This record gives sequence, C-alpha cells and structure tokens, in this order.
Amino acid sequence: MSVQQLIEEAIYKFSKEKVHVTAAGRTDAGVHAYGQVGSFELITKHDPYLVMHSINFFCRPHFVGVTDCQLVGAEFDARFSAKKRHYVYKILNRQGANIINYGRQYWIKDYLDIGLMKQAASYLIGNHDFTSFRASECQSASPVKTIETIEIIRNGENIEIYISAISFLHHMVRNIVGNLVQVGRGHWPPEKIKEVLEAKDRTKGAPMAPAEGLYFLRVDY
Amino acid sequence: MSVQQLIEEAIYKFSKEKVHVTAAGRTDAGVHAYGQVGSFELITKHDPYLVMHSINFFCRPHFVGVTDCQLVGAEFDARFSAKKRHYVYKILNRQGANIINYGRQYWIKDYLDIGLMKQAASYLIGNHDFTSFRASECQSASPVKTIETIEIIRNGENIEIYISAISFLHHMVRNIVGNLVQVGRGHWPPEKIKEVLEAKDRTKGAPMAPAEGLYFLRVDY
Repeated sequence: MSVQQLIEEAIYKFSKEKVHVTAAGRTDAGVHAYGQVGSFELITKHDPYLVMHSINFFCRPHFVGVTDCQLVGAEFDARFSAKKRHYVYKILNRQGANIINYGRQYWIKDYLDIGLMKQAASYLIGNHDFTSFRASECQSASPVKTIETIEIIRNGENIEIYISAISFLHHMVRNIVGNLVQVGRGHWPPEKIKEVLEAKDRTKGAPMAPAEGLYFLRVDY
Repeated sequence: MSVQQLIEEAIYKFSKEKVHVTAAGRTDAGVHAYGQVGSFELITKHDPYLVMHSINFFCRPHFVGVTDCQLVGAEFDARFSAKKRHYVYKILNRQGANIINYGRQYWIKDYLDIGLMKQAASYLIGNHDFTSFRASECQSASPVKTIETIEIIRNGENIEIYISAISFLHHMVRNIVGNLVQVGRGHWPPEKIKEVLEAKDRTKGAPMAPAEGLYFLRVDY
C-alpha cells in the first residue's frame, strides 16, 4: 500500500468521506519526506488540528504521519499551486559502517571530493533537456526542466546535496546524484557531466543513487 | 545481548582471542552512540582498518558497528584515560507525529520555552552533589560531579541539549533533561531546579527523559 492510499484510508476512517489526496511531488518507495504537501477536500468541516491527529491515529502502526494541517481555499492544489520544490540527498562518506542512519543516508566508503562535484553540478544549473537524467517510465510531457540551485555541503563525514527546481522529472534527483558521485570518487572528470547532459541519452549516465538518501524537503507556494 | 558482548564475540570470531572491551561510558538500552570509545588488547597484531571491518562483519545483522579503529599504547584505557565526556539529548518539539526520527528523538508536543530551560540549566553548572539526578542503582563512589557546560539550541522544531562533564552518574543526563523539560513546559519555574539540586533527593525531581533521545557524542582524551 502506498503512503497516499494509507492516508486516504485514514481520512475515510474518521470522516467517512472518500477523498483523493493530491501530493506536491512523487516520492519513490524508500524516499523520505520532511515536507511533502498533500491537499484534499472534505464536505464536512473539521478543525485542521483534529484532522491531523485523526489521520495520524489511523495511520498507525505504519511509519507514516502528518506534521501539520491547514485549511486552504478551494483554489489550492498541492501539485499545481507549487512554485518550487526542494530536495536534499544525504550521503555518509566514511569507511565505518552506517548504523544510526541506516536506510536514511547513502553510505559511500570512497572519499568524495565535493570541490569536483560542485564543478560538475554547475553544468546542470539552468534550463536544459534532462533526458539523460530521466527514468524510462517518466510521464512528464517534456524532458526540459530548470534547475535553480545545486548546493553541496560537507560537514565532516556527512555530505548533503540540496537541489531546487520548479519541478523534476521522474528519478531526476537520484540520477543527478549518481552522476555527481562518479565525479566525486574521481572516476570521471567534472566535464563528463556536461557530455552526459548533452548526449540526451539515459544510457550515457551513471547508475542512479539509491532511494534511501533522498528527502523531499519543502515546497514553495 | 549487550553491545559490549556482541563486539567481544565479533572480535573472538575473527581473532580467536577472548578480550574484554572497556568502554568510555555506559549507554543504557535504547541510547545511541555517535562517539562511544572502547579499548581492548589483542596478542596478534592486525591492521586496525581490518579489525574495524572484521568487527562490523561479525556484528551483522545487528545495528551495531565500529566507525573507526586505531592502534594505541598499552597505557591507553578507554574509560580511565577519558578527560571529558559529551552527550547530546535530542527533542522533537511539535504537534505533528515523529516519523523519520522515531526512536531517535524524544517527541514533546507541548511548546518548550528554551529561554526558561537555559536559566534552569545554569543552576546545574559547576561542582555539585547530583544525588537528585542519580539512578538508585548508580555505582559511582560519590554523587559529586562537575558539569562544565549545558547548551540548549532550538532549530525550528528540533531542540538539542548538549551536556559536557568529566564524568556522569548513572541516568544523570536523562534526569537533568527530564527536569529541564518540566521548566520548558512551564510546569515549574527555573528556580525549582536549584531546589531539586539542593534537596539531594531523587524523589524531588521530575520523571527521567526516555533513552531514545540520548546520544553519547564524543570523548576527549
């Protein structure tokens, strides 16, 4: 059962209303969400605070929950009203095992040079055809997207890659990270990312980074 | 089986030597460790890097692992050579459910006023008889300890309480946090912590904070 189904069923359990929840962005299985946003419409009026706690009650014992709930106008749509989406990808970069954040960070033992990764990332900023970073099952009408920022931060053995855009293609962030990691390891020169981008061919890129490191961070409306 | 036993058995499995691992500090069941340090002696010399990976291999599938391993002189003892110990206690302070960090943060729905908590904490800095913050089963020879610093930081809905001392009594950090939380909730004035301290009576204090929020952060040698 998907997170969406679980939440729709939880809403039904307390309200007896069958709703469709629209989400701001897709999160694949294993991807985490700090700030996913979903919208739905109930006929009966409830206190938003009680809606939140009711959903959370009926989502148990699954590790799914709502962190905030607000009443909005009928014109609001979590997906189509979104102005910008922000993701963060977390990497644990050390020899020692990943214990505390197992399943929550991509564990890479080889030392990653984030200076090279930043240079590689710079080729992806702006408006491009991201066919090389797109899943084969992507349903987006166009492969052209605009990446606003890619920030790469190292804090000791923790690396975080922040990516912001109006919208993304399916698997785009994980494919970008997979390619940047090849550069960070020193397997590819930074310029290779430009080549991959220009090839407009998914088979020219690196393997996709795993879901476990990816977090849907925030949506701007 | 304790973490210590698990590691001692893992060491035996690769080295066939029965060792005793001495740890820098105790961590109760459910407490996490970023920087616990353990020392042990092997008769056969091994590369420390291989020792780390061998321990991690034989600790599987448990969520226990070693993050670094170094060769030290025979005079080094993880417990008795420790000069200072650092803990952090993590609180998630919001109405919305704790999902991503379930079991890794203490979830408190009531808003905590960290200004009041800082004032309360100031009474605990320095050399005091911490009987009121000590577990009944504590085996320390004296209840007198010196707290060097308590730092309380709020970052949005995340609160972190950093506590540093040469050494701690059993359950001391969790008891301190339990008392500070009473103040943060507004149930007690900050001065009440001074009263609890001076009472030298565990029954005067607040309930202990749960293990899940506590992390053994670092040891200075």
